[in-house]
Amino acid sequence: MRDDYDFIIIGAGVTGLSAAMYAARLGLKTLCLGATSSSELPVGGVITTTNIVENYPGFIRLTGTELAEAIEKHARSYDLVTIIKDKVQAIMRKGMHFTVQGKKETYFCKTVLFATGTKWKQLEIPGSKEFENRGVVYCALCDAPLFKNKVVCVVGGSDSAAKDALVVAEHASKVYLIYRGKEIRSEPINTARVKAHPRIEIITETNLTAINGEKSVSNVFLDKPYQGSKTLALQGVFVAIGHVALSDLAVPLGVALNAKKEIIINHKTSETNVQGVYAAGDVGDKPFKQAITGVSEGCTAAWSAYEYISKQR
Amino acid sequence: MRDDYDFIIIGAGVTGLSAAMYAARLGLKTLCLGATSSSELPVGGVITTTNIVENYPGFIRLTGTELAEAIEKHARSYDLVTIIKDKVQAIMRKGMHFTVQGKKETYFCKTVLFATGTKWKQLEIPGSKEFENRGVVYCALCDAPLFKNKVVCVVGGSDSAAKDALVVAEHASKVYLIYRGKEIRSEPINTARVKAHPRIEIITETNLTAINGEKSVSNVFLDKPYQGSKTLALQGVFVAIGHVALSDLAVPLGVALNAKKEIIINHKTSETNVQGVYAAGDVGDKPFKQAITGVSEGCTAAWSAYEYISKQR
Repeated sequence: MRDDYDFIIIGAGVTGLSAAMYAARLGLKTLCLGATSSSELPVGGVITTTNIVENYPGFIRLTGTELAEAIEKHARSYDLVTIIKDKVQAIMRKGMHFTVQGKKETYFCKTVLFATGTKWKQLEIPGSKEFENRGVVYCALCDAPLFKNKVVCVVGGSDSAAKDALVVAEHASKVYLIYRGKEIRSEPINTARVKAHPRIEIITETNLTAINGEKSVSNVFLDKPYQGSKTLALQGVFVAIGHVALSDLAVPLGVALNAKKEIIINHKTSETNVQGVYAAGDVGDKPFKQAITGVSEGCTAAWSAYEYISKQR
Repeated sequence: MRDDYDFIIIGAGVTGLSAAMYAARLGLKTLCLGATSSSELPVGGVITTTNIVENYPGFIRLTGTELAEAIEKHARSYDLVTIIKDKVQAIMRKGMHFTVQGKKETYFCKTVLFATGTKWKQLEIPGSKEFENRGVVYCALCDAPLFKNKVVCVVGGSDSAAKDALVVAEHASKVYLIYRGKEIRSEPINTARVKAHPRIEIITETNLTAINGEKSVSNVFLDKPYQGSKTLALQGVFVAIGHVALSDLAVPLGVALNAKKEIIINHKTSETNVQGVYAAGDVGDKPFKQAITGVSEGCTAAWSAYEYISKQR
């Protein structure tokens, strides 16, 4: 059986890159595969869409891209690490070995780590698909500058939604943060920033019911009147209603998922229920998901893969 | 009931300091208590005794002290964080609140995090106590320069032992790495470094049985002849035979420990079996203990404490 690699990591975000660094230190020949299709994120993963990271211990304040670059550089400093931009189509088990089929090439290995992360949950109301990229956008950091001096809304109430509102307010003249719940659920420090911001207005207990326009968005309908009207004139809708775990490739391997489609892992070891298969970061079932926790889980997975491979030698 | 703090962290190593930073971001009034007695480590914890850290993702290579300082600075950048050098004597629960009795002062809080780490396991053979600090030492980084051009041994076979041997070999003329097992268990990258080092010699399947000398160490007895003799002439013994979890203060609170005296935690949340009590880092029961995993567990504990306190408001 051909084993080109000891350890293949699906996903080249901070979690996957940290796992690669750690695996190389443990002597594992490691491949880290990042997606390339234009609709997906490059090496560095979802953190590159975050403007300011202040909660990765050791760095008081840096951009998501800067953090990803530091960790990518760290991984690349080991000769045993190869990073290839290829999108994985399928993973097959053959005995104790795995075949990882990419778009460009097929790879072989002894162990696999899912560090595939999540994708944005789509807003599903009339107009949301029609106006996608014509006013309806998902990446605040990528697209905020397109809305300079415009009126926009951010849909959602999470910490990500609050941070998106802050980023968008750097450019837009007015930002409505529209949330279905009673109180936004962001980190207290970000809630305070949003509430104090002169250009952000929070509208709670309200849902968008439709997005309207001609060539691009010109207004949205609400399910509850705001200042006497159920129509809100605006040019942009930033959607931040959560994420969906990218775990589809794990299903044919028999990997167990929870109801949210997250991969269930042993949080001591990052092992899944399938021998030789690990998961770490946002695709896993840890309720508290941060760069620092994903990175730690990735390093733990590398150690578990090393222990597993050592026992077979 | 007096609640001066939301969250008190026992221990000011990288785990405790990261937890402090994270707790402050979550709006918790946080106190981090570090030990002061001269025989114990200052703020920064045990990592400050590590010469080179290459496996904390984001920093390719820095000293343990540099990493600790970066994280301490990060914690201190939040007004809600107070760091006090005080040695905790006892912790008492009163209803939903805790009293933390230090040597200097008594503190009050809603939640407690054990980030107390470990202490070095003592070598218990004839002469080991007698010659402590007269040839027998535990901190390679602290004491290696004292053995310039001397012959020494490092006792142990872990990754720490291997790294200690490398540090000591910077100064000593000869370093015997003496291990009871068949093969040292260090990270492969460090095993390779030790084996390639011209001044380090590995002696396996051998134990020290006594340490001898007059004013200071002059030789050790072995349980197996080495090059024809059971006596090895040397001037220094660096002990690196492992650690003991510093969990004694948790016992009166009813916190569950495992057989190794490590605090058993839920690795998703860093919760112990006692409400409002958390543990993170080396004192916990994760088999794979690294700076990065302790830091992640500390941040997770801060989040769990925040969730717990929020529900009571």
